[in-house]
Amino acid sequence: MAAATGLIAGVSILAPLGAYAATDDHGGAARNDGDKTAAVRESIVDGPAKNVILLIGDGMGDSEITVARNYAEGAAGAFAGIDALPLTGQYTTYALNKDGTPNYASESASTASGWSTGTKTNNGALSVDIAGTPQSTLLELAKANGLRTGNVSTAEIQDATPGAQVAHISARGCYGPVKTTANCAAEALENGGLGSISEQLLTLRPDVVLGGGSATFTEKAVAGDWAGQTLFEQAADRDYQLVSDAAGLDAVTAADQSAPVLGLFTPGNFPTRWIGPEASVGGGDLAPVSCTANPERLDTGLSLASLTDKAIDLLSADSEQGFFLQVEGASIDKRDHAADACGQIGETIDLDEAVQSALAFAKADGNTLVVVTADHAHTSQIVGSTPPGLSVALTTEEGSPMLVSYGTAEAGESQQHTGSQVRIAGYGPGAANVLGLTDQTDLFFTSSNALALNTNLRSLSAAATLTLDQAAVAPGAAFTATGAGLAADWRATSEVSSSASTDPLGVVDVIDGRAVIVGTAPTAPGQYTVTLTGAQTGVSVSSVLTVAAAGTTPAPTVAPTPAPAGAVPGTGPTNGVAAGVAAAVGGLLASTGAQVAPLVGIAALLLAAGGVLVVVRRRRHGVL
Amino acid sequence: MAAATGLIAGVSILAPLGAYAATDDHGGAARNDGDKTAAVRESIVDGPAKNVILLIGDGMGDSEITVARNYAEGAAGAFAGIDALPLTGQYTTYALNKDGTPNYASESASTASGWSTGTKTNNGALSVDIAGTPQSTLLELAKANGLRTGNVSTAEIQDATPGAQVAHISARGCYGPVKTTANCAAEALENGGLGSISEQLLTLRPDVVLGGGSATFTEKAVAGDWAGQTLFEQAADRDYQLVSDAAGLDAVTAADQSAPVLGLFTPGNFPTRWIGPEASVGGGDLAPVSCTANPERLDTGLSLASLTDKAIDLLSADSEQGFFLQVEGASIDKRDHAADACGQIGETIDLDEAVQSALAFAKADGNTLVVVTADHAHTSQIVGSTPPGLSVALTTEEGSPMLVSYGTAEAGESQQHTGSQVRIAGYGPGAANVLGLTDQTDLFFTSSNALALNTNLRSLSAAATLTLDQAAVAPGAAFTATGAGLAADWRATSEVSSSASTDPLGVVDVIDGRAVIVGTAPTAPGQYTVTLTGAQTGVSVSSVLTVAAAGTTPAPTVAPTPAPAGAVPGTGPTNGVAAGVAAAVGGLLASTGAQVAPLVGIAALLLAAGGVLVVVRRRRHGVL
Repeated sequence: MAAATGLIAGVSILAPLGAYAATDDHGGAARNDGDKTAAVRESIVDGPAKNVILLIGDGMGDSEITVARNYAEGAAGAFAGIDALPLTGQYTTYALNKDGTPNYASESASTASGWSTGTKTNNGALSVDIAGTPQSTLLELAKANGLRTGNVSTAEIQDATPGAQVAHISARGCYGPVKTTANCAAEALENGGLGSISEQLLTLRPDVVLGGGSATFTEKAVAGDWAGQTLFEQAADRDYQLVSDAAGLDAVTAADQSAPVLGLFTPGNFPTRWIGPEASVGGGDLAPVSCTANPERLDTGLSLASLTDKAIDLLSADSEQGFFLQVEGASIDKRDHAADACGQIGETIDLDEAVQSALAFAKADGNTLVVVTADHAHTSQIVGSTPPGLSVALTTEEGSPMLVSYGTAEAGESQQHTGSQVRIAGYGPGAANVLGLTDQTDLFFTSSNALALNTNLRSLSAAATLTLDQAAVAPGAAFTATGAGLAADWRATSEVSSSASTDPLGVVDVIDGRAVIVGTAPTAPGQYTVTLTGAQTGVSVSSVLTVAAAGTTPAPTVAPTPAPAGAVPGTGPTNGVAAGVAAAVGGLLASTGAQVAPLVGIAALLLAAGGVLVVVRRRRHGVL
Repeated sequence: MAAATGLIAGVSILAPLGAYAATDDHGGAARNDGDKTAAVRESIVDGPAKNVILLIGDGMGDSEITVARNYAEGAAGAFAGIDALPLTGQYTTYALNKDGTPNYASESASTASGWSTGTKTNNGALSVDIAGTPQSTLLELAKANGLRTGNVSTAEIQDATPGAQVAHISARGCYGPVKTTANCAAEALENGGLGSISEQLLTLRPDVVLGGGSATFTEKAVAGDWAGQTLFEQAADRDYQLVSDAAGLDAVTAADQSAPVLGLFTPGNFPTRWIGPEASVGGGDLAPVSCTANPERLDTGLSLASLTDKAIDLLSADSEQGFFLQVEGASIDKRDHAADACGQIGETIDLDEAVQSALAFAKADGNTLVVVTADHAHTSQIVGSTPPGLSVALTTEEGSPMLVSYGTAEAGESQQHTGSQVRIAGYGPGAANVLGLTDQTDLFFTSSNALALNTNLRSLSAAATLTLDQAAVAPGAAFTATGAGLAADWRATSEVSSSASTDPLGVVDVIDGRAVIVGTAPTAPGQYTVTLTGAQTGVSVSSVLTVAAAGTTPAPTVAPTPAPAGAVPGTGPTNGVAAGVAAAVGGLLASTGAQVAPLVGIAALLLAAGGVLVVVRRRRHGVL
């Protein structure tokens, strides 16, 4: 068969390998530098990874990538970030209808929920399944597993892609208390729900959150501990480091659970890097134009790459902990909706620079999985002649005309998402899982498996303990109960109870698994049980508190209240007297107060989501 | 960081791995069966491969794949062929303008030329560069390297995709002599060109050619050996096995260079598998419909999968030789142009079945590279609401409505190709070269490297020999000259010459490197040189023929004519006398007759194409 003299041998004789040739030469347009089998093999690295960085180009279908590459790098060029990941595949992005049937045209909420939770849902819903049941997210699970977490976007931070990592809500538009009261009543704090997206974000407490959307934080909470205060005031009260400009961000030197960073740099979405003419009917027939710099673009210290660098710096500062970071270039989608080619191209370049940052870190670190993909495809198409719908002719940076068509909506209306499978690309430990055909929900497993996350939240809080500062206190005296090890809880509720009474002690934030309750002992002497219950897992821990006048020993007539299901014995109960909590604590959770059972119910749903993986193929077609 | 208890461990406790769950369950839509790093690693196999099968979905962008998958397999389903290849990437498909600048919207001729030759060209051109210089194709190189070759399509076999493997011509429409005379004058046989696409196909002589396009073969050649005869008559005269229906194809039991199979089953393109409503303005608002079987579809024995099976059977019959086979599903593109979703979907399914055939062979064989890709993306998009342009609502086989938009041309006009990068997928030795971002021209190198092809055609014919049946013949007597080893030539020209005269002996087909010339010796006694020159490589071999009356010895006054540049000494020259060839041989090649130099000129151009590989990156961005 074939002669032994191969192509590569010929090269070394006839032309130096790697010599620069014109695109029209034989081999001049090829991108591979000879056979890359060995390089590909080398790029396949087993997990686990210490860190995962997901970079999402919203609406960045293959067509959007090509539009941007042609414009900025030339047809024969390559993005230094987006195009540099060695392992590539395609994934499906369909959504479900509420009845479980497929919806072939998805949007950013259902799609972001898909990779954030591993569960398909309906359009508009954030990290709940089609029945409305909350599903644990990668960011939540990473935090519960002791990793640091970050969430970066050029959009409003409540927008679907960043929102899906931090909130569980039926309608993506419920950014703050106002919209939530109006449109997401079931999730409103005042109705015992988890609250708006912003309020859920504040409760989840990622270490680093950077993006737009400050406007919502000027709204006031309508229920809960911070009722009547703005979300900014709430954030400050909960020890967030609030920053709003590049200088402020630059001044931040650390971010952790005790002082997370919340950087909100615009009231709404970030301005894009570039501006240019929106496509119009017949626009393709106009003289081609170039994109221009957007004078409203933020300070370079607030570019997506800068934010990514800062987030990585902050999250990787502790060399022991790993981290999970999501980064979104949001306006590829938003400007595609607006038939604004320059807007979407500039945003793609911004994302590419962020990918370069992530890859530079990953390459140096050696133990980081980087994944670059989109949530769904979009409208823009490169065509050869002016189409009947909207179009625009651009002069690319290599000086050639490129015609871009937007044909899924009328002028002035929003161009539609499209249902094509999209590219997914990976680098680092576990990245081989992106190859071939996968679904968006596989990315949840690719990421959680790479980080070896325990997705059973309950088990992560199971070793929790509760310690009282005094085993016995005087009636009505103050005492402190400290929970620890509630790794998978961000809030905890507490109560003091006997067979005769149950009094709430309040709801507190859990910081690094630790919850501190300052209570007042009941006025009636006797033996009480102080119980602390994690709001996310339903795990309860309790200790016996003895309430007695100084120098006396109370009659041991009252047996400790049996702990709720799942309760873990606390430490150090002795005699004492307790009293009801001084102030009622507002309902962040459905069951704020003494009703542990409903809390457990919510937690059980979360557990059901996070604790079970059923890998499925309805149709087993794979022959290989 | 992460707890030791991983996700997979949880599965085995909570639900059997692989249990079937609903798509709306957590993990229910995931496609990966757990971590597939090891499986991916195993799928990466070094070349060389014995065989290469390229399967091209014309116009099969990611959107077209998704449209077809949603319809036929369900959103959560997978194609058993197309989706089963383990190694995947994206490649760019841009064309060039004649001046070398990029054309971001390509078509099937420039794109097929790209992977067929490794050289970018302008839209409409087939396997010539932008200067019009012929570029060696994979099929040509495979044949020249001693492999068997096949070319299968549901289109007219002269159409761009199959045509690019077999012809070098400036305009893809020059199927036969009529159009070539009219539109491709420079390539017309009567003007010394290589001839129409059909005539170049007949000369190249692939072992197996199956498709449509019989109408062109009823045209008559206007020059050359078969002037005045139909191409069918010519094919028969050149020992092709001609078949036109399933029974005829079924009866073929072998195909090789001595008797290649030319199966042409329709005058034009094949009818598609399915029919349905064409998209229309407002069509998305009509009640969704299902696709229906096309009553005009060919016999099942002529499905693309059946043709693929037959081609593989014939090409793999000799267990020593490897083969190169290209298979095209052409009407994904053609029906997309017509805004006919059912047509394009049915054709995608047909291609999928062909891919299944190829994979089944490759899996069993263990030494075959299979690549599945597209030539360019196309118009169809899945949307959520009726767009302003053309649209159609289909009820998929899972019972859900899917809306498909065609927005790049008005009703009744041809929907446009689009310039997006497209999926490329591979299986087998060398398949790792499809990963990441490549260009269409990389596929040439992926394939030729996998087959370890020597792309220097001249070197493949360099060991040729010429043997005369008699070293000395009587004046005007018949003699036979047999060339052998012209591995990279499909035609050869011959002449007999002395210092005083040069007379053509004719042009003949080269079969398995062998060319047999039956000539008549010159009438003047003396020493002559018989020269045989390969039409593709320009390699010449010669032998001395002594023309003398019986019993005499001619005076050694005439020295043998110096061989042309590149000539290889033949064997067995002795004394004799030769005469001019009896009949003039029509001009298949530009220099038919005695003008060796122009032949060498053409060959040198081919060599320039095939003999040099310059792997280039204009911009070196890859960081990994």
